[in-house]
Amino acid sequence: MYTLHIGNKNYSSWSLRPWLLVKALGIPFEEVLHRFGMEEDWAEYRKLNASGLVPCLFDGDLVVWDSLAIIEYLAEKHEGVWPADSQARAWARSASAEMHSGFAELRSKCTMTCGQRVELHEVTPALSRDIARIDALWQEGLSRFGGPFLAGPEFSAVDAFYAPVVFRFQTFGISVSPQATAYVERMLAHPAMVAWYEDALQETFRDEPHEAELNALGRITADFRQ
Amino acid sequence: MYTLHIGNKNYSSWSLRPWLLVKALGIPFEEVLHRFGMEEDWAEYRKLNASGLVPCLFDGDLVVWDSLAIIEYLAEKHEGVWPADSQARAWARSASAEMHSGFAELRSKCTMTCGQRVELHEVTPALSRDIARIDALWQEGLSRFGGPFLAGPEFSAVDAFYAPVVFRFQTFGISVSPQATAYVERMLAHPAMVAWYEDALQETFRDEPHEAELNALGRITADFRQ
Ligand SMILES: N[C@@H](CCC(=O)N[C@@H](CS)C(=O)NCC(=O)O)C(=O)O
Ligand SMILES: N[C@@H](CCC(=O)N[C@@H](CS)C(=O)NCC(=O)O)C(=O)O
Repeated sequence: MYTLHIGNKNYSSWSLRPWLLVKALGIPFEEVLHRFGMEEDWAEYRKLNASGLVPCLFDGDLVVWDSLAIIEYLAEKHEGVWPADSQARAWARSASAEMHSGFAELRSKCTMTCGQRVELHEVTPALSRDIARIDALWQEGLSRFGGPFLAGPEFSAVDAFYAPVVFRFQTFGISVSPQATAYVERMLAHPAMVAWYEDALQETFRDEPHEAELNALGRITADFRQ
Repeated sequence: MYTLHIGNKNYSSWSLRPWLLVKALGIPFEEVLHRFGMEEDWAEYRKLNASGLVPCLFDGDLVVWDSLAIIEYLAEKHEGVWPADSQARAWARSASAEMHSGFAELRSKCTMTCGQRVELHEVTPALSRDIARIDALWQEGLSRFGGPFLAGPEFSAVDAFYAPVVFRFQTFGISVSPQATAYVERMLAHPAMVAWYEDALQETFRDEPHEAELNALGRITADFRQ
């Protein structure tokens, strides 16, 4: 049995990726949630995982401590993590790795907070470039592999990698092309996304640095959290 | 035959990774170098690769456009990209993915410029943390898997992923533990690293933004480039 360590569902974009993948593929796992800012949730964990970050997967005593590494670890053991078609798989891996190391402006200016709705004070040129690149990538994948998911007919790791962006576009009301908008709606209706979102809304604990950061970025127009 | 598109060898840390791996494993490839700042080197390339970044691998008309995705693509086709032992492989993938998405301070404050030697104006606390984390990771890998490479007896993708750090530690004179220092020396003597370094020294073209950035970061004490 796998154990997946994650952060708050409302905020933790990196945790969402592997969680969503194992959920969507029906791979059994236990989850352990560490609340940001609660020292008692992290002290023991840092002894198990020296990076000190979430997510982290334990398979017995084997530890895999980064979201992309977790996904490649699972891909060795389970069908369907990446698309079966080799062209689609190369595309999906490229798009996922581009997300893993890129889109810094989107990550910092549209921080993930699933349960809130926010009007940004400012859309910087760098943010517009990040959004345009994602829109183009999604359209490319959807057209080339025929949808409804980014790399073809089945949900795969590349959808999990862009799932935090889907929540961000909802939270910050980001407009994209009709094809990308339809993808956002499809993803928001996916059972694994719905399950994460509902858990996020139930969370009662707040992390002050996250809340303060958001207040500096925009005007909060709705908060659906408990 | 593979075609690998790269940037200037003196500066392009992302390009170094897959180049070094294919070189070290003896996988045949052709390279195409795009000089930063030379528009004529990039206009055609952007039509082939919409991300507009290097590195990028072509296998016939199949394009893989991110250093980590290139490595996973090669891992499906060639032996020895990742360690054969599953514990070592999970560790190597975690460490590589951590590098891919992390160490922002090291990347920006110790920008890669193989051929120069620089005394930093300032070592920020965030830079010290990045260096300490890398030192700890290297010691962990070397001790756990027995060296001389990070994940065991053979050079693998995780060594390629940390190779830009090896050049950075040389350029900026960063002191690390004896075990990590010995690893830096071993890597600098590796034939594929020597080959890249010699090519970098031969480059006569300079990219003004890179040169200006470096001048702002520290005092240049040596320049071994042509
Ligand atoms: N590259 C890592 C990044 C993980 C990461 O940055 N996690 C954040 C939360 S989403 C974290 O654990 N922060 C806790 C802290 O910094 O103490 C991955 O993909 O897993
Ligand atoms: N995640 C990408 C990052 C590639 C990247 O940022 N490349 C830089 C140079 S090292 C680049 O192509 N810059 C050219 C530009 O920005 O125009 C990878 O790992 O391949």
